[in-house]
Amino acid sequence: VKIGMSSDGIGTKIEIAERLRIYDTLGRDLIAMTADDLAANGMETVNKTNILDVDRLDPDTVDALMRGLQEAAAEANIVITGGEIAELGERIGGYGKGMHFNWCAAGIGILPEGLEAVDGRDIRAGDSVIALKSRGFRSNGFSLLRRVMEKGVGKAWHREKYDERSWGEVLLTPSLIYSPLIASLRRSGHVLKGIAHITGGGIAGNLARVLKNSGSGAELTDVHAPLPFMREVQRLGGIPETRAYRLWNMGNGMLIIAEKEAAEDIAAAAGEKGYAARICGRIRAGGGILLQSRGEDAQEIEYSPDNGA
Amino acid sequence: VKIGMSSDGIGTKIEIAERLRIYDTLGRDLIAMTADDLAANGMETVNKTNILDVDRLDPDTVDALMRGLQEAAAEANIVITGGEIAELGERIGGYGKGMHFNWCAAGIGILPEGLEAVDGRDIRAGDSVIALKSRGFRSNGFSLLRRVMEKGVGKAWHREKYDERSWGEVLLTPSLIYSPLIASLRRSGHVLKGIAHITGGGIAGNLARVLKNSGSGAELTDVHAPLPFMREVQRLGGIPETRAYRLWNMGNGMLIIAEKEAAEDIAAAAGEKGYAARICGRIRAGGGILLQSRGEDAQEIEYSPDNGA
Repeated sequence: VKIGMSSDGIGTKIEIAERLRIYDTLGRDLIAMTADDLAANGMETVNKTNILDVDRLDPDTVDALMRGLQEAAAEANIVITGGEIAELGERIGGYGKGMHFNWCAAGIGILPEGLEAVDGRDIRAGDSVIALKSRGFRSNGFSLLRRVMEKGVGKAWHREKYDERSWGEVLLTPSLIYSPLIASLRRSGHVLKGIAHITGGGIAGNLARVLKNSGSGAELTDVHAPLPFMREVQRLGGIPETRAYRLWNMGNGMLIIAEKEAAEDIAAAAGEKGYAARICGRIRAGGGILLQSRGEDAQEIEYSPDNGA
Repeated sequence: VKIGMSSDGIGTKIEIAERLRIYDTLGRDLIAMTADDLAANGMETVNKTNILDVDRLDPDTVDALMRGLQEAAAEANIVITGGEIAELGERIGGYGKGMHFNWCAAGIGILPEGLEAVDGRDIRAGDSVIALKSRGFRSNGFSLLRRVMEKGVGKAWHREKYDERSWGEVLLTPSLIYSPLIASLRRSGHVLKGIAHITGGGIAGNLARVLKNSGSGAELTDVHAPLPFMREVQRLGGIPETRAYRLWNMGNGMLIIAEKEAAEDIAAAAGEKGYAARICGRIRAGGGILLQSRGEDAQEIEYSPDNGA
């Protein structure tokens, strides 16, 4: 049995939950961050443990956090086998009153029997790249987000309306968890040659890592457009296109690389499972990534093989 | 292959490192906390990942932390396979200037081929209990420790001399890692029926959990004496014996239960590996734990089966 391990936290997205006093969605982000990293290697997360650092324990807040975590874990077929809560007093800070906390998790992934790890080594020029749409900022780039919102909207930005929702609710949008889709695709025989989980580093940074094993590059001419609120944040902060695409997922939470002939089927199978998927580009010989961006200042961005990350 | 997982942090012991600006010993505590939990189940830690939450990154401090972690991991035959550093700004607090941080880890353990999990189910009246000595407070009970020191010695208590060392150095004493000893004992054929890693909950709280599967109890009449500085802390804080033995290890970091006939050999084998071990008591029928304590107010403490933990 091949096993893997992944650990991650949800960073400063927690502040949004503290601002809104909504605690039952963060579990989804925590599951997504670690399970989708393992999924990108073709591993299925079986066990997960979490560590919650709090200043002073508030049972109701902890209940809400754990309820959200259990729900998300159940949907993703993951068993939460362990957990630690550490009461750390002044070592933990946060927004306003209420319990402050930092939250991270580690997961064990296994390679399902008969399936190989996904390591990008079979990627070839001509393969297709499929983009899975994201719902929001997932759990990366929140330090910049919070600065933009405070400067652009004001100190109590989370309460201001964006549409029918407040800005706080928009930014708290829970992460879509891709790992069950990846497992289902692979178990039903689809061959995924490479998978990039789009976290810090953005589309190019994370894809570059996947392309390294094959020495190839990519042309992404048709990625998902950023969600409207992402463009609004970009506009509010005057964030240059290249920076936005380096720090945020800009509407694309995961990329899958597959043979050209298989790509339509994979995108269709993802669609049937409720994931918006589109063929967004192709693999090219030679390194580097060309990205047709779709933010406020849409442009062709060329990442050289050296600074792709 | 049976796999297990354990996650834990080192809590507020970090403040001692921040006070002294000594950062290369905490890795040993981090390894001990998780690897010794797995060892108590008979698992050998193979992989470990760590998550370091910092306020603002200081490369020198991170280097020292990671150097200590790698050293300790190497000694314990553990590979550090993953790590995350999250820069969380105001969400992290700590003592004085310098980088503040919280640190946790998760480990994967495997059951070595041909060996069973250690679950306490074969424990019988008449078995012996072997105590492994600890060097210091390991990584539990530091909130109370810090309160005692501040009240009893003063705000800058870490700089005051205890013996040739400062109080800070004494309390920072790195944890002894027991997992390599447990692995070596089991691999050389010694049968360990139950293992208690003495963390929060103390001797009785942690032993009670191990005894649950067999419904038995224990009489511990000859545990290791607390280290002299532990008694001094107890005296400074006026900490009652029962409380000291519930929050601190009081000189006993791990208990091993084995057949009476095997106990001498096990203790001798541990001694040869450099671990101070003594037969400290025996298993009795019926629940409950009798502990002859050896702190400032030495006494017989009787824990009922219900409130052992």
